[in-house]
Amino acid sequence: MNITNNRPIVTLITDFGLQDEYVGVLKGVILGHTPEALIVDISHLIPPQSISAASHLLTRSYRYFPAHTVHLVIVDPSVGSDRPILAIAADSQYFVGPDNGVFTPIFTNASGLTIHRVDISCFLKKGVSSTFHGRDIMAPVAGKLACGLDLSSIGTRIAPEQCLRLEEAACTRLDNIIQGEVIHADIFGNLCTNIRRQDIEIFAADHEITIQVTKGLIVPLDKTYASQSNGMVLALYDSHDYLEIAINRGNAAQQLRLAVGAKIVVCRR
Amino acid sequence: MNITNNRPIVTLITDFGLQDEYVGVLKGVILGHTPEALIVDISHLIPPQSISAASHLLTRSYRYFPAHTVHLVIVDPSVGSDRPILAIAADSQYFVGPDNGVFTPIFTNASGLTIHRVDISCFLKKGVSSTFHGRDIMAPVAGKLACGLDLSSIGTRIAPEQCLRLEEAACTRLDNIIQGEVIHADIFGNLCTNIRRQDIEIFAADHEITIQVTKGLIVPLDKTYASQSNGMVLALYDSHDYLEIAINRGNAAQQLRLAVGAKIVVCRR
Amino acid sequence: MNITNNRPIVTLITDFGLQDEYVGVLKGVILGHTPEALIVDISHLIPPQSISAASHLLTRSYRYFPAHTVHLVIVDPSVGSDRPILAIAADSQYFVGPDNGVFTPIFTNASGLTIHRVDISCFLKKGVSSTFHGRDIMAPVAGKLACGLDLSSIGTRIAPEQCLRLEEAACTRLDNIIQGEVIHADIFGNLCTNIRRQDIEIFAADHEITIQVTKGLIVPLDKTYASQSNGMVLALYDSHDYLEIAINRGNAAQQLRLAVGAKIVVCRR
Repeated sequence: MNITNNRPIVTLITDFGLQDEYVGVLKGVILGHTPEALIVDISHLIPPQSISAASHLLTRSYRYFPAHTVHLVIVDPSVGSDRPILAIAADSQYFVGPDNGVFTPIFTNASGLTIHRVDISCFLKKGVSSTFHGRDIMAPVAGKLACGLDLSSIGTRIAPEQCLRLEEAACTRLDNIIQGEVIHADIFGNLCTNIRRQDIEIFAADHEITIQVTKGLIVPLDKTYASQSNGMVLALYDSHDYLEIAINRGNAAQQLRLAVGAKIVVCRR
Repeated sequence: MNITNNRPIVTLITDFGLQDEYVGVLKGVILGHTPEALIVDISHLIPPQSISAASHLLTRSYRYFPAHTVHLVIVDPSVGSDRPILAIAADSQYFVGPDNGVFTPIFTNASGLTIHRVDISCFLKKGVSSTFHGRDIMAPVAGKLACGLDLSSIGTRIAPEQCLRLEEAACTRLDNIIQGEVIHADIFGNLCTNIRRQDIEIFAADHEITIQVTKGLIVPLDKTYASQSNGMVLALYDSHDYLEIAINRGNAAQQLRLAVGAKIVVCRR
Repeated sequence: MNITNNRPIVTLITDFGLQDEYVGVLKGVILGHTPEALIVDISHLIPPQSISAASHLLTRSYRYFPAHTVHLVIVDPSVGSDRPILAIAADSQYFVGPDNGVFTPIFTNASGLTIHRVDISCFLKKGVSSTFHGRDIMAPVAGKLACGLDLSSIGTRIAPEQCLRLEEAACTRLDNIIQGEVIHADIFGNLCTNIRRQDIEIFAADHEITIQVTKGLIVPLDKTYASQSNGMVLALYDSHDYLEIAINRGNAAQQLRLAVGAKIVVCRR
């Protein structure tokens, strides 16, 4: 795969926050390697060391970027240990980050998957800190991929089976229910679940369905927030076609006191 | 109006926050349409669904951008309903966002106003979510305007009277007072009001004036924060020439317990 | 010194936060002067009016940017008074900001230091607010330097001795200890100190050393966070080769209740 667009894009997902210099330093290093790079922040407010949250955000964002975009994902609690660093091509995009499970959905769902383990010996020669591999190894690798370097020059190719994977939250279909769970609460308090629209539609067929959010709370499946009165709980399909629980002009996470892991049940009458 | 600058600029004002993928996705979509776009965040920390706060920020920022900048403003609690989406040219700039009143100050004050209602039929063909028109309609429209597409190709021209407007906070001049109100508290706790410097200067003429902030609290009108001792309350003209209430090296909003809507009175002796 | 790179970079460090329009306006003004500028946020979450925090962040970030980058640092509690504004060349980079001590580490450590006091008379002619010199003076100066204007055309050259300096936190070597202090707590709760690795290594020579964090709490000096069990306190060298106190997968600042100013002692056996 060769980079052919004129303007290399590098996106960033980290748990570095916005108060320290870490994000700025990453950008300085990338620009040092690839002055023409366009760097786009996806989020730096991943909860500290939450690999699953970073993975979730990556899954929901990377497809919206042009081909050949390089996605740098740094949530790296094992920094300085010998955990490998990966450079991946998949779905016509590139991905760089630690081998700690953060790329699980790419391994599972993406097409054209090629994984290389970054050869860090050349970086070690230059002196590498043991606390900031994002700056010392991953940003340079992302910068190099962004300006067209081939994956094979980054390190040895490995098989997907050699990479760490996260256990994903289960979404189970039983006879008359689908049981999934909340996997993210967004800034509006909308609760994203892991229950897919297409699975619900196949399950529902000609039946009417209801959504059970908590014990005793059955909510309607509607099309838009505003279809319900202010303050009413509803379920709808989010912009990625997963089931979402929301309150029109309210905050479902706070008002229903639900968080990641809460069970959501789709019933068929 | 034709875009003539070489580097199209798109600014963003949203209530999407910085923890989710929404802002990154918007940028990916814009760059997909206009790879050479320069995207500038104005703020994503608009309080959820606060149309008036977004409107205030837009008013205070757009004039500082080069001609032909496209300002994308997404605070859209009625997303998915049939509320229209607007594409506007005014003051040599472009504006894109929902028709919910967020552009009221543009309708009131800008020159060269042209408003088009976005024809969403072409977007509907491609499949549009009912929860993220920012991604599916508004970002593509902004991207197209940024790369030079004419407003008339976006949809039908409509009259300003057909658009929704917010009721603006009143600033009233009576015989011997001007009464206005706090319309924004900034990060420093400085309280922005809707009382204009020029109105105070005409009102004052040769008289001395005083500013009454709360019952019994009369504060001086001074030129800079540092003109007063640390901790002292003062009034001054902000960088947009509106009256502002502040505490030198303090936080007026917190210390005076004042928020948006608090009445401020200018008196003449 | 002449700018020779094709893509001028301007970085921003401010206490403006992300909720107001201030940062967006700065960017609009810079782009008005230098449309091809690449603007990089280092941080806007400096605690309000904390000159020392801004200085610390600048020190830890500027070297990672390409030569000729312009670093605009705006923490300016005396805005509107007659405190000077500086434009500085040092270490092949440019710096612009108020003369309030924020550039102390540049004065102390950088090479090739040239300082000019910005001649604001030309700005005054255009009308300058008394509350936002960042927008009205500093951003235009940064924009001009970014597009290649010579420092000498910005104002008169002055000597470093004419500039304000911050008092820096002391790191003292006595016979059998080095005593330094915490100068920053980062988002992970890691406590950065002002004790340099090279000073510890010279001090240690062939002796074993221990780190005393609080009365009675002696912690090991290790290489990586993950070398210790989860929840264990350790000392290590940070990515700038200063001593850092951390808790593996924990938050040292919160859990040890330590903040800026806390004393840290290195002992030799």
